[in-house]
Amino acid sequence: MPNNSDDTLEMRIKPIGYINSGLEKPGFRHDPDIIPERKKKQNIEYYKSVKDSVSKLILKPQYIELLDGIEDFSHIVVIYWPHLIPDEEREIKKVHPMGRKYISQKGIFATRSPARPNPILISTVRLIERKNDFLKVKGLEALNGSPLIDIKPFTRYDDTKTAVFPDWLVKLHAELEEN
Amino acid sequence: MPNNSDDTLEMRIKPIGYINSGLEKPGFRHDPDIIPERKKKQNIEYYKSVKDSVSKLILKPQYIELLDGIEDFSHIVVIYWPHLIPDEEREIKKVHPMGRKYISQKGIFATRSPARPNPILISTVRLIERKNDFLKVKGLEALNGSPLIDIKPFTRYDDTKTAVFPDWLVKLHAELEEN
Repeated sequence: MPNNSDDTLEMRIKPIGYINSGLEKPGFRHDPDIIPERKKKQNIEYYKSVKDSVSKLILKPQYIELLDGIEDFSHIVVIYWPHLIPDEEREIKKVHPMGRKYISQKGIFATRSPARPNPILISTVRLIERKNDFLKVKGLEALNGSPLIDIKPFTRYDDTKTAVFPDWLVKLHAELEEN
Repeated sequence: MPNNSDDTLEMRIKPIGYINSGLEKPGFRHDPDIIPERKKKQNIEYYKSVKDSVSKLILKPQYIELLDGIEDFSHIVVIYWPHLIPDEEREIKKVHPMGRKYISQKGIFATRSPARPNPILISTVRLIERKNDFLKVKGLEALNGSPLIDIKPFTRYDDTKTAVFPDWLVKLHAELEEN
Protein backbone atom coordinates (compact mmCIF):
# COMPACT_ATOMS: atom_id res chain seq x y z
CA MET A 1 0.00 0.00 0.00
CA PRO A 2 1.51 3.38 -0.93
CA ASN A 3 2.71 5.72 1.79
CA ASN A 4 -0.07 8.20 1.33
CA SER A 5 -2.62 5.81 2.78
CA ASP A 6 -0.67 4.37 5.68
CA ASP A 7 -1.63 5.22 9.21
CA THR A 8 1.16 7.71 9.71
CA LEU A 9 -0.53 10.13 7.30
CA GLU A 10 -1.78 13.13 9.27
CA MET A 11 -5.27 14.08 8.26
CA ARG A 12 -6.48 16.76 10.60
CA ILE A 13 -9.53 18.85 10.12
CA LYS A 14 -10.63 22.00 11.88
CA PRO A 15 -14.11 23.35 12.60
CA ILE A 16 -15.28 26.13 10.27
CA GLY A 17 -18.12 26.85 12.70
CA TYR A 18 -20.81 24.92 14.52
CA ILE A 19 -24.42 23.83 14.27
CA ASN A 20 -27.15 25.35 16.38
CA SER A 21 -30.10 22.94 16.45
CA GLY A 22 -32.93 21.89 18.72
CA LEU A 23 -31.54 18.35 19.03
CA GLU A 24 -29.87 18.00 22.39
CA LYS A 25 -29.33 14.26 22.59
CA PRO A 26 -28.64 11.43 20.14
CA GLY A 27 -31.69 9.98 18.42
CA PHE A 28 -32.41 6.31 17.97
CA ARG A 29 -30.18 5.92 15.00
CA HIS A 30 -27.15 6.24 17.25
CA ASP A 31 -28.10 2.99 18.91
CA PRO A 32 -26.71 -0.12 17.23
CA ASP A 33 -29.22 -2.33 19.01
CA ILE A 34 -32.58 -3.41 17.77
CA ILE A 35 -35.45 -1.03 18.48
CA PRO A 36 -38.21 -2.76 20.41
CA GLU A 37 -41.66 -2.77 18.85
CA ARG A 38 -43.05 -0.44 21.53
CA LYS A 39 -40.50 2.27 20.67
CA LYS A 40 -41.07 2.26 16.94
CA LYS A 41 -43.78 4.90 17.01
CA GLN A 42 -41.51 7.23 18.97
CA ASN A 43 -38.74 6.54 16.47
CA ILE A 44 -40.94 7.47 13.53
CA GLU A 45 -42.08 10.65 15.28
CA TYR A 46 -38.46 11.59 15.90
CA TYR A 47 -37.65 11.03 12.23
CA LYS A 48 -40.54 13.27 11.16
CA SER A 49 -39.71 16.03 13.60
CA VAL A 50 -36.14 16.13 12.28
CA LYS A 51 -37.37 16.50 8.70
CA ASP A 52 -39.30 19.62 9.68
CA SER A 53 -36.72 21.12 12.05
CA VAL A 54 -34.77 24.30 11.31
CA SER A 55 -31.09 24.61 12.29
CA LYS A 56 -28.50 27.33 11.99
CA LEU A 57 -25.02 26.82 10.58
CA ILE A 58 -22.90 29.43 12.32
CA LEU A 59 -19.64 30.30 10.60
CA LYS A 60 -16.46 31.58 12.20
CA PRO A 61 -15.67 35.14 11.08
CA GLN A 62 -12.77 34.14 8.80
CA TYR A 63 -15.02 31.85 6.74
CA ILE A 64 -18.04 34.11 6.18
CA GLU A 65 -16.79 35.40 2.84
CA LEU A 66 -16.51 31.84 1.54
CA LEU A 67 -20.33 31.62 1.58
CA ASP A 68 -20.79 34.24 -1.13
CA GLY A 69 -23.02 32.86 -3.85
CA ILE A 70 -24.47 30.02 -1.76
CA GLU A 71 -27.80 31.89 -1.60
CA ASP A 72 -28.43 30.97 -5.26
CA PHE A 73 -28.73 27.29 -4.40
CA SER A 74 -31.90 25.72 -3.00
CA HIS A 75 -30.04 22.85 -1.33
CA ILE A 76 -26.65 22.46 0.27
CA VAL A 77 -24.52 19.57 1.48
CA VAL A 78 -23.54 19.93 5.13
CA ILE A 79 -20.51 18.04 6.43
CA TYR A 80 -20.20 17.82 10.19
CA TRP A 81 -18.60 15.93 13.04
CA PRO A 82 -20.86 13.94 15.41
CA HIS A 83 -18.97 14.99 18.53
CA LEU A 84 -21.01 12.89 20.97
CA ILE A 85 -20.35 9.48 19.39
CA PRO A 86 -18.06 7.58 21.77
CA ASP A 87 -14.89 6.11 20.27
CA GLU A 88 -15.95 2.55 21.08
CA GLU A 89 -19.02 2.87 18.84
CA ARG A 90 -16.68 3.53 15.96
CA GLU A 91 -15.44 -0.06 16.25
CA ILE A 92 -18.85 -1.43 15.23
CA LYS A 93 -18.66 -3.40 11.97
CA LYS A 94 -22.30 -4.26 11.21
CA VAL A 95 -25.74 -3.04 12.24
CA HIS A 96 -29.40 -3.72 11.62
CA PRO A 97 -30.24 -0.50 9.67
CA MET A 98 -32.12 1.88 11.97
CA GLY A 99 -32.41 -0.88 14.54
CA ARG A 100 -34.93 -2.87 12.47
CA LYS A 101 -34.79 -6.56 13.27
CA TYR A 102 -36.52 -7.46 9.98
CA ILE A 103 -33.50 -6.12 8.07
CA SER A 104 -30.48 -8.41 8.27
CA GLN A 105 -27.21 -6.89 9.45
CA LYS A 106 -25.32 -4.75 6.95
CA GLY A 107 -21.73 -3.54 6.97
CA ILE A 108 -21.34 0.03 8.25
CA PHE A 109 -20.26 1.27 4.78
CA ALA A 110 -23.58 -0.03 3.38
CA THR A 111 -25.50 2.12 5.89
CA ARG A 112 -25.74 5.75 6.93
CA SER A 113 -25.06 4.86 10.57
CA PRO A 114 -23.29 7.74 12.36
CA ALA A 115 -20.99 5.25 14.14
CA ARG A 116 -18.27 4.80 11.49
CA PRO A 117 -14.47 4.53 11.40
CA ASN A 118 -14.22 8.21 10.45
CA PRO A 119 -17.13 10.11 12.00
CA ILE A 120 -17.84 12.43 9.12
CA LEU A 121 -21.53 12.89 8.48
CA ILE A 122 -23.06 14.31 5.34
CA SER A 123 -26.56 15.63 4.91
CA THR A 124 -28.23 17.31 1.93
CA VAL A 125 -30.72 19.87 3.19
CA ARG A 126 -32.84 22.76 2.04
CA LEU A 127 -31.24 26.19 2.40
CA ILE A 128 -33.88 28.52 3.79
CA GLU A 129 -31.95 31.74 4.23
CA ARG A 130 -28.50 33.22 4.32
CA LYS A 131 -27.76 35.85 6.95
CA ASN A 132 -24.33 37.43 7.28
CA ASP A 133 -22.62 34.83 9.42
CA PHE A 134 -25.10 31.95 9.40
CA LEU A 135 -27.28 29.83 7.17
CA LYS A 136 -30.73 28.59 8.11
CA VAL A 137 -31.43 25.08 6.88
CA LYS A 138 -34.32 22.63 7.11
CA GLY A 139 -34.20 18.92 7.88
CA LEU A 140 -30.73 18.50 9.37
CA GLU A 141 -30.30 15.70 11.92
CA ALA A 142 -27.29 17.15 13.74
CA LEU A 143 -27.00 17.61 17.47
CA ASN A 144 -26.70 21.09 18.90
CA GLY A 145 -23.06 22.14 19.04
CA SER A 146 -21.79 19.75 16.35
CA PRO A 147 -18.65 21.12 14.70
CA LEU A 148 -19.12 22.11 11.06
CA ILE A 149 -16.47 20.75 8.69
CA ASP A 150 -17.55 21.94 5.25
CA ILE A 151 -20.44 23.32 3.22
CA LYS A 152 -20.86 22.50 -0.47
CA PRO A 153 -23.60 23.39 -2.93
CA PHE A 154 -25.91 20.56 -3.94
CA THR A 155 -25.44 20.01 -7.68
CA ARG A 156 -27.12 17.08 -9.35
CA TYR A 157 -24.92 16.70 -12.36
CA ASP A 158 -24.26 13.05 -11.88
CA ASP A 159 -25.92 9.92 -13.21
CA THR A 160 -28.06 9.17 -10.16
CA LYS A 161 -31.34 9.62 -12.01
CA THR A 162 -31.22 5.90 -12.63
CA ALA A 163 -30.19 4.94 -9.09
CA VAL A 164 -31.66 1.80 -7.61
CA PHE A 165 -31.87 0.91 -3.94
CA PRO A 166 -31.98 -2.38 -2.03
CA ASP A 167 -35.40 -3.72 -1.06
CA TRP A 168 -34.66 -3.26 2.64
CA LEU A 169 -34.18 0.46 2.20
CA VAL A 170 -37.37 0.90 0.18
CA LYS A 171 -39.28 -1.01 2.86
CA LEU A 172 -37.71 0.94 5.70
CA HIS A 173 -38.64 4.26 4.15
CA ALA A 174 -42.16 3.10 3.45
CA GLU A 175 -42.42 2.41 7.17
CA LEU A 176 -41.01 5.81 8.09
CA GLU A 177 -43.06 7.84 5.69
CA GLU A 178 -46.44 6.17 5.59
CA ASN A 179 -47.13 6.15 9.30
CA MET B 1 -18.79 29.84 20.59
CA PRO B 2 -19.03 26.56 22.54
CA ASN B 3 -15.89 24.58 23.30
CA ASN B 4 -16.72 21.82 20.90
CA SER B 5 -16.07 24.03 17.91
CA ASP B 6 -12.95 25.83 19.07
CA ASP B 7 -9.65 25.19 17.39
CA THR B 8 -8.34 22.99 20.17
CA LEU B 9 -10.83 20.27 19.24
CA GLU B 10 -8.91 17.33 17.81
CA MET B 11 -10.55 16.00 14.69
CA ARG B 12 -8.29 13.39 13.20
CA ILE B 13 -9.22 11.00 10.49
CA LYS B 14 -7.47 7.89 9.26
CA PRO B 15 -7.41 6.29 5.83
CA ILE B 16 -9.65 3.25 5.42
CA GLY B 17 -7.87 2.45 2.14
CA TYR B 18 -6.86 4.26 -1.00
CA ILE B 19 -8.01 4.97 -4.53
CA ASN B 20 -6.42 3.39 -7.55
CA SER B 21 -7.21 5.50 -10.60
CA GLY B 22 -5.74 6.45 -13.94
CA LEU B 23 -5.46 10.11 -12.93
CA GLU B 24 -1.85 10.87 -12.10
CA LYS B 25 -1.90 14.65 -11.87
CA PRO B 26 -4.39 17.33 -10.87
CA GLY B 27 -6.88 18.37 -13.55
CA PHE B 28 -7.82 21.90 -14.39
CA ARG B 29 -10.25 22.26 -11.57
CA HIS B 30 -7.35 22.40 -9.13
CA ASP B 31 -6.26 25.66 -10.68
CA PRO B 32 -7.89 28.75 -9.18
CA ASP B 33 -6.91 30.84 -12.20
CA ILE B 34 -8.94 31.51 -15.27
CA ILE B 35 -8.65 28.92 -18.03
CA PRO B 36 -7.55 30.54 -21.28
CA GLU B 37 -9.84 30.11 -24.28
CA ARG B 38 -7.30 27.88 -26.05
CA LYS B 39 -7.33 25.36 -23.19
CA LYS B 40 -11.07 25.03 -22.89
CA LYS B 41 -11.36 22.16 -25.34
CA GLN B 42 -8.75 20.21 -23.43
CA ASN B 43 -10.63 20.98 -20.21
CA ILE B 44 -13.88 19.62 -21.62
CA GLU B 45 -12.13 16.48 -22.89
CA TYR B 46 -10.65 15.95 -19.45
CA TYR B 47 -14.10 16.30 -17.87
CA LYS B 48 -15.56 13.72 -20.26
CA SER B 49 -12.74 11.25 -19.79
CA VAL B 50 -13.23 11.38 -16.03
CA LYS B 51 -16.93 10.62 -16.39
CA ASP B 52 -16.11 7.42 -18.26
CA SER B 53 -13.12 6.35 -16.18
CA VAL B 54 -13.11 3.33 -13.88
CA SER B 55 -11.34 3.42 -10.51
CA LYS B 56 -10.79 0.95 -7.72
CA LEU B 57 -11.45 1.68 -4.06
CA ILE B 58 -9.05 -0.59 -2.20
CA LEU B 59 -9.92 -1.27 1.43
CA LYS B 60 -7.56 -2.12 4.24
CA PRO B 61 -8.13 -5.67 5.52
CA GLN B 62 -9.79 -4.59 8.77
CA TYR B 63 -12.50 -2.66 6.89
CA ILE B 64 -13.50 -5.24 4.25
CA GLU B 65 -16.35 -6.65 6.31
CA LEU B 66 -17.89 -3.18 6.62
CA LEU B 67 -18.71 -3.32 2.90
CA ASP B 68 -21.21 -6.17 3.25
CA GLY B 69 -24.47 -5.20 1.61
CA ILE B 70 -23.01 -2.37 -0.49
CA GLU B 71 -23.42 -4.52 -3.63
CA ASP B 72 -27.19 -3.95 -3.49
CA PHE B 73 -26.76 -0.24 -4.24
CA SER B 74 -26.25 1.11 -7.74
CA HIS B 75 -24.47 4.26 -6.53
CA ILE B 76 -22.22 5.09 -3.62
CA VAL B 77 -20.85 8.24 -2.05
CA VAL B 78 -17.05 8.26 -1.89
CA ILE B 79 -15.30 10.51 0.62
CA TYR B 80 -11.60 11.03 0.05
CA TRP B 81 -8.67 13.28 0.81
CA PRO B 82 -7.05 15.23 -2.06
CA HIS B 83 -3.49 14.58 -0.86
CA LEU B 84 -1.78 16.65 -3.55
CA ILE B 85 -3.48 19.99 -2.80
CA PRO B 86 -0.82 22.27 -1.26
CA ASP B 87 -1.74 23.91 2.05
CA GLU B 88 -1.52 27.40 0.57
CA GLU B 89 -4.34 26.63 -1.88
CA ARG B 90 -6.57 25.98 1.10
CA GLU B 91 -6.34 29.69 1.96
CA ILE B 92 -8.20 30.65 -1.21
CA LYS B 93 -11.51 32.39 -0.45
CA LYS B 94 -13.14 32.83 -3.86
CA VAL B 95 -12.77 31.37 -7.34
CA HIS B 96 -14.24 31.66 -10.80
CA PRO B 97 -16.02 28.25 -10.95
CA MET B 98 -13.98 25.86 -13.10
CA GLY B 99 -11.82 28.79 -14.18
CA ARG B 100 -14.56 30.36 -16.30
CA LYS B 101 -14.10 34.10 -16.63
CA TYR B 102 -17.75 34.58 -17.63
CA ILE B 103 -18.82 33.40 -14.15
CA SER B 104 -18.17 35.96 -11.43
CA GLN B 105 -16.18 34.87 -8.41
CA LYS B 106 -17.99 32.71 -5.86
CA GLY B 107 -17.06 31.84 -2.30
CA ILE B 108 -15.39 28.43 -1.95
CA PHE B 109 -18.40 27.06 -0.03
CA ALA B 110 -20.61 27.93 -3.01
CA THR B 111 -18.40 25.79 -5.28
CA ARG B 112 -17.11 22.25 -5.48
CA SER B 113 -13.51 23.47 -5.72
CA PRO B 114 -11.10 20.92 -4.20
CA ALA B 115 -9.11 23.73 -2.56
CA ARG B 116 -11.13 24.23 0.65
CA PRO B 117 -10.40 24.85 4.34
CA ASN B 118 -10.93 21.15 5.08
CA PRO B 119 -9.88 19.11 2.04
CA ILE B 120 -12.63 16.52 2.18
CA LEU B 121 -14.01 15.67 -1.24
CA ILE B 122 -17.26 13.88 -1.89
CA SER B 123 -18.33 12.22 -5.09
CA THR B 124 -21.42 10.17 -5.91
CA VAL B 125 -20.52 7.50 -8.44
CA ARG B 126 -21.84 4.33 -10.00
CA LEU B 127 -20.80 1.11 -8.29
CA ILE B 128 -19.83 -1.35 -11.00
CA GLU B 129 -18.67 -4.33 -8.98
CA ARG B 130 -17.69 -5.47 -5.55
CA LYS B 131 -14.73 -7.82 -5.22
CA ASN B 132 -13.52 -9.04 -1.85
CA ASP B 133 -11.31 -6.13 -0.87
CA PHE B 134 -12.13 -3.52 -3.48
CA LEU B 135 -14.97 -1.77 -5.25
CA LYS B 136 -14.94 -0.81 -8.91
CA VAL B 137 -16.61 2.53 -9.58
CA LYS B 138 -17.25 4.71 -12.61
CA GLY B 139 -16.83 8.47 -12.95
CA LEU B 140 -14.66 9.31 -9.95
CA GLU B 141 -12.35 12.33 -10.31
CA ALA B 142 -9.79 11.30 -7.70
CA LEU B 143 -6.06 11.15 -8.22
CA ASN B 144 -4.27 7.84 -8.01
CA GLY B 145 -3.24 7.14 -4.42
CA SER B 146 -5.80 9.44 -2.76
CA PRO B 147 -6.58 8.23 0.77
CA LEU B 148 -10.12 6.94 1.21
CA ILE B 149 -11.98 8.36 4.22
CA ASP B 150 -15.44 6.83 4.04
CA ILE B 151 -17.92 5.04 1.80
CA LYS B 152 -21.67 5.54 2.16
CA PRO B 153 -24.57 4.21 0.12
CA PHE B 154 -26.33 6.72 -2.10
CA THR B 155 -29.90 7.04 -0.84
CA ARG B 156 -32.17 9.67 -2.29
CA TYR B 157 -34.64 10.02 0.50
CA ASP B 158 -34.37 13.77 0.77
CA ASP B 159 -36.31 16.61 -0.79
CA THR B 160 -33.90 17.39 -3.62
CA LYS B 161 -36.38 16.48 -6.34
CA THR B 162 -37.31 20.15 -6.37
CA ALA B 163 -33.73 21.47 -6.25
CA VAL B 164 -32.90 24.56 -8.25
CA PHE B 165 -29.47 25.69 -9.35
CA PRO B 166 -27.94 29.08 -10.13
CA ASP B 167 -27.88 30.16 -13.77
CA TRP B 168 -24.09 30.06 -13.85
CA LEU B 169 -24.06 26.36 -13.00
CA VAL B 170 -26.67 25.48 -15.60
CA LYS B 171 -24.68 27.41 -18.22
CA LEU B 172 -21.38 25.83 -17.19
CA HIS B 173 -22.80 22.32 -17.49
CA ALA B 174 -24.37 23.09 -20.83
CA GLU B 175 -20.88 24.03 -21.98
CA LEU B 176 -19.34 20.85 -20.57
CA GLU B 177 -21.94 18.46 -21.86
CA GLU B 178 -22.96 19.79 -25.23
CA ASN B 179 -19.51 20.05 -26.75
